[in-house]
Amino acid sequence: MSVTAPAGFEAAGVAAGLKSTGKPDVAVVVNRGPRKVGAAVFTSNRAKANPIIWSQQVIQDRVVEAVVLNSGGANCFTGAFGFQTTHQTAEKAAELLDISAGDVLVCSTGLIGTGDETFRSRVLAGTEQAIAELSADGGDSAAQAIMTTDTVAKTAVISRDGWTIGGMAKGAGMLAPGLATMLVVITTDADLEALEADTALRAATGRTFDRLDSDGCMSTNDQVTLLANAASGVKPDLADFSAALRELCQELAVKLQGDAEGASHDITIRVTNAATEQDAVEVGRSVARNNLFKAAIFGNDPNWGRVLAAIGTTNAQFDPYDVDVWMNGVRVCTQGGPDRPREDVDLAPRATDVLIDLKVGDAEATILTNDLTHDYVHENSAYSS
Amino acid sequence: MSVTAPAGFEAAGVAAGLKSTGKPDVAVVVNRGPRKVGAAVFTSNRAKANPIIWSQQVIQDRVVEAVVLNSGGANCFTGAFGFQTTHQTAEKAAELLDISAGDVLVCSTGLIGTGDETFRSRVLAGTEQAIAELSADGGDSAAQAIMTTDTVAKTAVISRDGWTIGGMAKGAGMLAPGLATMLVVITTDADLEALEADTALRAATGRTFDRLDSDGCMSTNDQVTLLANAASGVKPDLADFSAALRELCQELAVKLQGDAEGASHDITIRVTNAATEQDAVEVGRSVARNNLFKAAIFGNDPNWGRVLAAIGTTNAQFDPYDVDVWMNGVRVCTQGGPDRPREDVDLAPRATDVLIDLKVGDAEATILTNDLTHDYVHENSAYSS
Repeated sequence: MSVTAPAGFEAAGVAAGLKSTGKPDVAVVVNRGPRKVGAAVFTSNRAKANPIIWSQQVIQDRVVEAVVLNSGGANCFTGAFGFQTTHQTAEKAAELLDISAGDVLVCSTGLIGTGDETFRSRVLAGTEQAIAELSADGGDSAAQAIMTTDTVAKTAVISRDGWTIGGMAKGAGMLAPGLATMLVVITTDADLEALEADTALRAATGRTFDRLDSDGCMSTNDQVTLLANAASGVKPDLADFSAALRELCQELAVKLQGDAEGASHDITIRVTNAATEQDAVEVGRSVARNNLFKAAIFGNDPNWGRVLAAIGTTNAQFDPYDVDVWMNGVRVCTQGGPDRPREDVDLAPRATDVLIDLKVGDAEATILTNDLTHDYVHENSAYSS
Repeated sequence: MSVTAPAGFEAAGVAAGLKSTGKPDVAVVVNRGPRKVGAAVFTSNRAKANPIIWSQQVIQDRVVEAVVLNSGGANCFTGAFGFQTTHQTAEKAAELLDISAGDVLVCSTGLIGTGDETFRSRVLAGTEQAIAELSADGGDSAAQAIMTTDTVAKTAVISRDGWTIGGMAKGAGMLAPGLATMLVVITTDADLEALEADTALRAATGRTFDRLDSDGCMSTNDQVTLLANAASGVKPDLADFSAALRELCQELAVKLQGDAEGASHDITIRVTNAATEQDAVEVGRSVARNNLFKAAIFGNDPNWGRVLAAIGTTNAQFDPYDVDVWMNGVRVCTQGGPDRPREDVDLAPRATDVLIDLKVGDAEATILTNDLTHDYVHENSAYSS
């Protein structure tokens, strides 16, 4: 059900010919109210796609009635023509839904530089078709239409006392924070004020999607949107809602990690006893981005030296000779020297745990990443051809 | 001839059993004077190998008489025992050469965490053997003994009016600045003051080895050493010497790039018209570290969108909609939009040129990197096993 699990939302996904495979590639999500609260976070990449530039304007008043999403083309670095395409997409949706274009978010994903006249006409036709097919059961078809190299649609639903949160996500490559290459739409029928929605969304994404760093590459098109319509009539405790939202975001983040391009290991890097949470994040991210470490995990090699070499490039507070490293429950390095033999570590399972104990404070953070594999190289060397 | 090309230097390389292949793995370079000037730069990784910790003390007085280098083990994160091994290596060389241990630099390279009793006894025996075999023709054998996954020995010699500079380098993986995973010894018979040698070395490495960023991974063991003995009796013009030293370092850096693990393209990223040289370096490095860009080049795919996405993650001054990108002489992106068709770009040659015109100033910098290939993944997933 994904985004249509909460009351008062409709969605659809259709095939508009943007993907050469003929699979669904345009999705629309509509909030039928009564409230039209919207919150969104965007890529921090300074090279922003046209839909990002548009949507950052739309979200200013925190009112969103619809989201139009397409795969099969990022509409990024496509010039003024590309921005007009985004604008026309919002206008088209607004006209058909009898709402304001200024309340329509647009999201695009696919190859950068794609956004010609054919792209435009197909996105506009797909928008029209999707709106014609909107239904309260359309969440799953919408989730399928935003897939690119994803092998499975990613959805999640959490229900609490009288209210529900539903979400859909896409993302398989260029997964790195600020945010990852992800498009996410989350809906809820809980009754939230606009500022509450914004605060809860930023808190949730900051510790979930922003800590997914599959390949260190930051996208130009990332957007995570929360729509809240109060259709349940229930005003949740804000702490409860925030916890549920974070849980849902984490579930989607883990699904993105599990479907990352070419990956054969899902690596959870937990950094403990850091001086600050920021230090823990910096250390975890540095290890997550170390190609030598990532290739070693692919080879089932518990090469803890590469972990320490990565930690050494950070500004975090630590003593290189008082760090412990555990892999899948085995302490392979203690106090800057070898501990238990590498043969004791079983890296055959897809789920891989790396624990780094910095021994200087009590802060911690967890970064999710993947290994560096032949399939990753293959998929990304052939993606645009 | 490498390090023995200049007058007054002797070297040797021997097989001491550190490498399972039985190939040479211990090298010694000795400065026979008359002057014993030494300068060195080290990895900026905070996780430093024992030889780095030792050598940073030795270089304080800027007097160096000998350098002992080994492959087959990094002696990094090997605890107090490992540091004693380094110390004993310097003592052994000093005793046999009748010099002070405080004038003996030690360099190690190989797997992190390797440095047990067998390692120690073989390094010490190898040092003894190499010193017994020292000769004025030993430069090439020394260059071979420092190879790890290198497929060829890297040496360079430059001669000017009465003086010569010779150098040897090793490095094939974990190539990233500050410095790369490299061991480099450079010798000269020019007559230099210690401060002159230090200044010239830092200027040269800052724009050569520090701008080689093959895989974004910074080593724990990097060291570049310059030994100057005044044996030519010629005091060079300092600008001439600095230019020649930079030329030699650039030649060695290009040789390291050309032999980078698994690479199929040598990529030269030139960033022009930046506001500052620092901006140009940041932009070039960000592109050089983008796995998606690197995989695209492996696939002969001129995917300029990934170049712009990488630029967008920097803090450099630029307008995303006024950047031009050229690949192998073809302008594929202009002012934030597609320019000439990607089919016009021939990425089949190993040498690949990427030119990024930021159009905001007049500073520039060049970063050398490689593509991300199946062979890179393979070599680094199996390295320690």
